[in-house]
Amino acid sequence: MGSWPDTMKDAATVGRIFKIIRDRGPLSGSDIVRWSGLAKSTVSVNVDRLVSAGLVREEAQPDSKRRKLKVAENAGHVIGVDIGQTHLAVGLCDLEALVLDSVRIPIELVKQGPEQVLERVCALIDGLVLKAGVERKDLFGIGIGVPAPVDFARGMPVSPPVMPGWDHFPVAATLQERFACPVFLDNDVNVMALGERDRGLAQNADSFLFVKVGRGIGAGLVVHGEIYRGAKGAAGDIGHIGIDGDSTPCRCGNLGCLEVVAGGAALQAQAAEAASTGRSPFLAERWRQGDEMGAETLALGAAAGDPFALALVMESGKAVGTVLAKLVNFFNPSVIVVGGRFAHLGERYIASIREAVYRRSTPLATADLVIKRSQLGDEGGVVGAAVLVLDEILSHRNVSKILEETNDGHQP
Amino acid sequence: MGSWPDTMKDAATVGRIFKIIRDRGPLSGSDIVRWSGLAKSTVSVNVDRLVSAGLVREEAQPDSKRRKLKVAENAGHVIGVDIGQTHLAVGLCDLEALVLDSVRIPIELVKQGPEQVLERVCALIDGLVLKAGVERKDLFGIGIGVPAPVDFARGMPVSPPVMPGWDHFPVAATLQERFACPVFLDNDVNVMALGERDRGLAQNADSFLFVKVGRGIGAGLVVHGEIYRGAKGAAGDIGHIGIDGDSTPCRCGNLGCLEVVAGGAALQAQAAEAASTGRSPFLAERWRQGDEMGAETLALGAAAGDPFALALVMESGKAVGTVLAKLVNFFNPSVIVVGGRFAHLGERYIASIREAVYRRSTPLATADLVIKRSQLGDEGGVVGAAVLVLDEILSHRNVSKILEETNDGHQP
Repeated sequence: MGSWPDTMKDAATVGRIFKIIRDRGPLSGSDIVRWSGLAKSTVSVNVDRLVSAGLVREEAQPDSKRRKLKVAENAGHVIGVDIGQTHLAVGLCDLEALVLDSVRIPIELVKQGPEQVLERVCALIDGLVLKAGVERKDLFGIGIGVPAPVDFARGMPVSPPVMPGWDHFPVAATLQERFACPVFLDNDVNVMALGERDRGLAQNADSFLFVKVGRGIGAGLVVHGEIYRGAKGAAGDIGHIGIDGDSTPCRCGNLGCLEVVAGGAALQAQAAEAASTGRSPFLAERWRQGDEMGAETLALGAAAGDPFALALVMESGKAVGTVLAKLVNFFNPSVIVVGGRFAHLGERYIASIREAVYRRSTPLATADLVIKRSQLGDEGGVVGAAVLVLDEILSHRNVSKILEETNDGHQP
Repeated sequence: MGSWPDTMKDAATVGRIFKIIRDRGPLSGSDIVRWSGLAKSTVSVNVDRLVSAGLVREEAQPDSKRRKLKVAENAGHVIGVDIGQTHLAVGLCDLEALVLDSVRIPIELVKQGPEQVLERVCALIDGLVLKAGVERKDLFGIGIGVPAPVDFARGMPVSPPVMPGWDHFPVAATLQERFACPVFLDNDVNVMALGERDRGLAQNADSFLFVKVGRGIGAGLVVHGEIYRGAKGAAGDIGHIGIDGDSTPCRCGNLGCLEVVAGGAALQAQAAEAASTGRSPFLAERWRQGDEMGAETLALGAAAGDPFALALVMESGKAVGTVLAKLVNFFNPSVIVVGGRFAHLGERYIASIREAVYRRSTPLATADLVIKRSQLGDEGGVVGAAVLVLDEILSHRNVSKILEETNDGHQP
């Protein structure tokens, strides 16, 4: 083993090279030299270490005879856990956050305490791991997203508005004890933003916004590739941004919050009323047939040309876009990805958001701005939770630790 | 000289140590060990290099017998240039952005082209340098702030709305040729934010907002200590955020932009009207005495209890605060510093901003949030421009170059 400082420097170098391969691979050796600014010999020595430790592998390229380097996605596994208000999804993923197998069950988060839900989580993880024949040592870590503000460092929800009993419950510690691997907890919207960065529509974006429209509305900010959490971890709480002049009362005590105007719960309530009063013949018919007045039914109504459903979809898109227009002027992202169940209200919905943003942001801020609906679907939460844990366990510092543990011949 | 990779690693280490001393000094050697995580011997060797190159010095501490390390502020000089719509200020600063000498003259930016203004800039720099007896080799660089969007990498204004003839004019290159030292150009609001970070009210803030209320309104975002510019360099353009429902036409073509409701030009116009119609007896009297209807007069009117002036000051504070409330929910900064000439409308103004933010942001986002008026005054632009150039010339990479050039005994 070299002296302290040399070891540190080597660790930083190998971690940096791994990050470049992870972010930009597949890459050739000379690509890595170009991206890193390191000498060819340094790159070569460290790539060899990564390859012999099994973290990086060579891959044949379809369009060239040369082989390129990429993360050895099968060198280990991680678990992504997506805890929602009405669902629990768990996925077994490879080291590129590809979901290999997953399971999704309905839950009622407001009625079930943390012990009960986490017991289900453990059982689902056990099932997936057993089925896949994954050995304990190959489970690198677990990532979890929850619909609550989170103290990231301590791995616990903080004052969750919709999760009674979860306040300061040691979620990460509980699973860490059970599975003897690192566990990371974050807010569901931040987690979904990470999913878009690695496997979704924001793969080439340095800084972007992910907007989740579920029962509530929230945003995840990615700045230079990393989640920006703000001074109190409250960044991205756009659901309680006020729409000036709107006086709809919100559960937070204020008037005209975006969430109470355009969140899923608000849309659902308006749809139910239009169904029961017969104001919308389409929704009334669906109501009689026992359909839930949720995103799917509203989307069908809008697509079928039901005037009420269409107006509701377009008005809520406009409200979201009006708030986003302000944030675009302020933050100037290159991409906005809209996800969550109520993002699936159809193309008219996304078009209404887009129109409001383009109309009310400055031309410079909207030049080349892309606003799209997430393509990750129901898997978004699981993928993002897998990326959350990959970011941590495959960080600069930890990659060199993994190399040390695999005895990669670095000792003299 | 060591092999390529060793040199790189040494450069990164010494640059990192210098940054810690610059950001957090004065520090003891063991403070640096703690902040850097480097070995004591590594810190010691590199501190010696920095001290013998003259970039770092020891300083006696009033409350202890031990001496601590800090930037050798007199090891060189930088120039800060603040180009405003009606003023030009140039300052000679030390390596901690302390203004040693400065000069400020009135200009009319809309009427004078870049050649004419930059000629004045050069003359003022020459005067300061000559007076102080600074040698050319000790002038490390020049930083410039302009009231326009800027292509930072190319050092030129881009589509400036209030500077005819400056579009894509090579400002940095022009001065670089003249003074043979590095020159950096940025938007005035970004520059002022940097000033607050190093010498103002945001010295302990990891991420904060600087809001400038001048004729227009703009913001500078600092994320993890660095200016965040956004995808097109347009981040922080809050002057054209719309106030929902307001229909005041703005020069940008939209209605109800913050700037046209609460910017200095708008306030000035309203004050002038109230003075000429006699609606405000206080302003009318001042008007007769030939006073400008600017920030100072309005502040005096509000302080004297003139109902019109007071209402205008409080209403404009409320408008700024209403927009900031939304951005606080989104960005969750720890500090908001309000600067620019129209920030000096008195304590009632800042209180109105604060009240609107606290009333309309979430409790978590406003917990410990500080909203204060800048204390840097007229010097803010010059200080910030000095910090801009210091950030660049004293970066990781450049510090090691400076060491090489001073032949610090690193060659074998």
